Amino acid sequence: MNSTSNVTESRMTGSMTNMAQQWVGALRWEGDGAKGVLHLLDQTLLPGRVEILPLKTAAAVFEAIRKLRVRGAPAIGVAAAYGVVLGCQPGAKGDNTSLQKQVIEVANLLAESRPTAVNLFWALDRMKRVAAGEQRLTSAELIERLLHEAQAIEAEDRQMCAAIGRYGAALLPDQGGVLTHCNTGGLATAGDGTALAAIIAAHAMGKAITVYADETRPLLQGARLTAWELMQRKIPVTLICDSMAGWVMKQGRVQAAIVGADRITARGDAANKIGTYSVAVLAKAHGIPFYVAAPSSTFDLTMLDGTEIPIEERAAEEITHPLGTQFAPVGCHVFNPAFDVTPAELITGIVTERGVISPVTEENVRGMVG
Amino acid sequence: MNSTSNVTESRMTGSMTNMAQQWVGALRWEGDGAKGVLHLLDQTLLPGRVEILPLKTAAAVFEAIRKLRVRGAPAIGVAAAYGVVLGCQPGAKGDNTSLQKQVIEVANLLAESRPTAVNLFWALDRMKRVAAGEQRLTSAELIERLLHEAQAIEAEDRQMCAAIGRYGAALLPDQGGVLTHCNTGGLATAGDGTALAAIIAAHAMGKAITVYADETRPLLQGARLTAWELMQRKIPVTLICDSMAGWVMKQGRVQAAIVGADRITARGDAANKIGTYSVAVLAKAHGIPFYVAAPSSTFDLTMLDGTEIPIEERAAEEITHPLGTQFAPVGCHVFNPAFDVTPAELITGIVTERGVISPVTEENVRGMVG
Repeated sequence: MNSTSNVTESRMTGSMTNMAQQWVGALRWEGDGAKGVLHLLDQTLLPGRVEILPLKTAAAVFEAIRKLRVRGAPAIGVAAAYGVVLGCQPGAKGDNTSLQKQVIEVANLLAESRPTAVNLFWALDRMKRVAAGEQRLTSAELIERLLHEAQAIEAEDRQMCAAIGRYGAALLPDQGGVLTHCNTGGLATAGDGTALAAIIAAHAMGKAITVYADETRPLLQGARLTAWELMQRKIPVTLICDSMAGWVMKQGRVQAAIVGADRITARGDAANKIGTYSVAVLAKAHGIPFYVAAPSSTFDLTMLDGTEIPIEERAAEEITHPLGTQFAPVGCHVFNPAFDVTPAELITGIVTERGVISPVTEENVRGMVG
Repeated sequence: MNSTSNVTESRMTGSMTNMAQQWVGALRWEGDGAKGVLHLLDQTLLPGRVEILPLKTAAAVFEAIRKLRVRGAPAIGVAAAYGVVLGCQPGAKGDNTSLQKQVIEVANLLAESRPTAVNLFWALDRMKRVAAGEQRLTSAELIERLLHEAQAIEAEDRQMCAAIGRYGAALLPDQGGVLTHCNTGGLATAGDGTALAAIIAAHAMGKAITVYADETRPLLQGARLTAWELMQRKIPVTLICDSMAGWVMKQGRVQAAIVGADRITARGDAANKIGTYSVAVLAKAHGIPFYVAAPSSTFDLTMLDGTEIPIEERAAEEITHPLGTQFAPVGCHVFNPAFDVTPAELITGIVTERGVISPVTEENVRGMVG
């Protein structure tokens, strides 16, 4: 990819208060449909370097998704929708029929970028449906219509984040520590995220919150992304190793825990980044409320029990060689589940864009999102 | 230090079963007092490289202790005792009086190598006392007497480990998973260690144990040392991130947890590597027995309650830049306690070289080690 030309680059140095960085978010479209550009924060370089890539082709978007330069299911969906617009720009001077064909080709290409991202397929299908319904527009009009749809997907995601943020913020304490795990913020969505949206909204309301961010081994989303994002937003954050979560709770430093979710069953069992289950057990043992924040699209009501959720096991190297550095003996046997499942009994409430499910029971889950 | 000449070096490649490595332990003296050499495993190079340093001077021992090439309180004590012998070799041809002076000088030098290692001071004082009691020996005889004392310190440490191993092994299940945290094995002592000694003895008895080794962030003693040591000893080990401990317990993979301790109070509260407390809470929540293994010298009966134990906080870089690799934003605020305290209520039993304290009460602690 050659889209790294004309790059905005800055290095973070010094303490939090010295940093002149502004929060940039995961992505931002600039311009009209015909000539616009997708500006995308390269998350693979965080936290060492802040680099905004001006993506001008669908191939560049494909590469960015595949290489995890953009990650988080909602953000991937939005990026892919804009990718369809970019992929159609060369055809803007042809007729509607040829542009229709191009929409399908580009969307099918982009669908290959990540294998299991549900939001990706959903967003691309939506772009294809919109195009198919607009046979009478000129191709110049159609490309603006596609941009309009991509912007609608982005706006809906922002609204979802904002609603989760409002409902979640009300649950957080007026002051004290809030522990979170992994990254669930504005780097993973078009808006302010899910669990982190609640923290951001609480902070905006004037709640005096310090965030305890688990570093989240093995892939370090907490250290690399959450700590960085909160520093950018000037929200107090203290980074800890995952093993310290119990001790900070024991010391009375944590008044609530809030995390995201990848899939939630009908009875409210929640699959999320590995380590979440330990946090939930520790919170329960210390009498600390434990919240899950996720959009209603995260619920899979075809499953009742969390034991039905398949757990992906990932490469040993994520544990033995993080960021390329050798931590463990070559050939060491490793167990590396990417997710775990927290049973409903350990969850004080599930925050969705429609409201809060609490207590977490099958009846309440089906009532809110069924 | 130039003692890296004539080094035994080998690289570990391939899987566990391909490794031809033999277990070497932390250190080994070869030869008599006058001309002997201390062979020391350079633990700072593990797990990437196995390098045995032939130490021939007290200055080389000083450097090895200061640079953490040898670590673990008992192993440091033994290394320092041999360091006194090495430091006296040049004076073996003088008279007793000048060698006496040299013993004191060398011991005082070695005492500066680590600031808070109680076993270090204890071993050096013992060497000085032995010398002071032997005014009538020739210097050639005195140096052999000093070697004899260093070997006695090593042998006593081995016996302590063996006794802890026997008592601990009896508590471990006949088969199944045993979770441990940090490194408490033969790299930290002259013998087989404390918690790991129990696992090693159980394995030797034919118990079919798989060890789940927490990687133990931030300093990775579990990944770098425990996993390596168990692989050398051909004991099945599965390395996990600290955040996975709860999930492996939930899945029924763990039948017992056993860890070491740095200090234990009169009521049985145990300070140990940060993350131990979380393991204890998680074990309790899953009905899994949680054992602490430590010699009687670890008990500090002047303290009743674990809240009295001061907790060292260490540099942020251990979390933000492990092994020099950037994990977190520059300037990120960090909380990095080196230890935590597990209250007696969470400990099923404390294994000492004198027997097992269970249930863990002040009466039983004072009865065993008072």
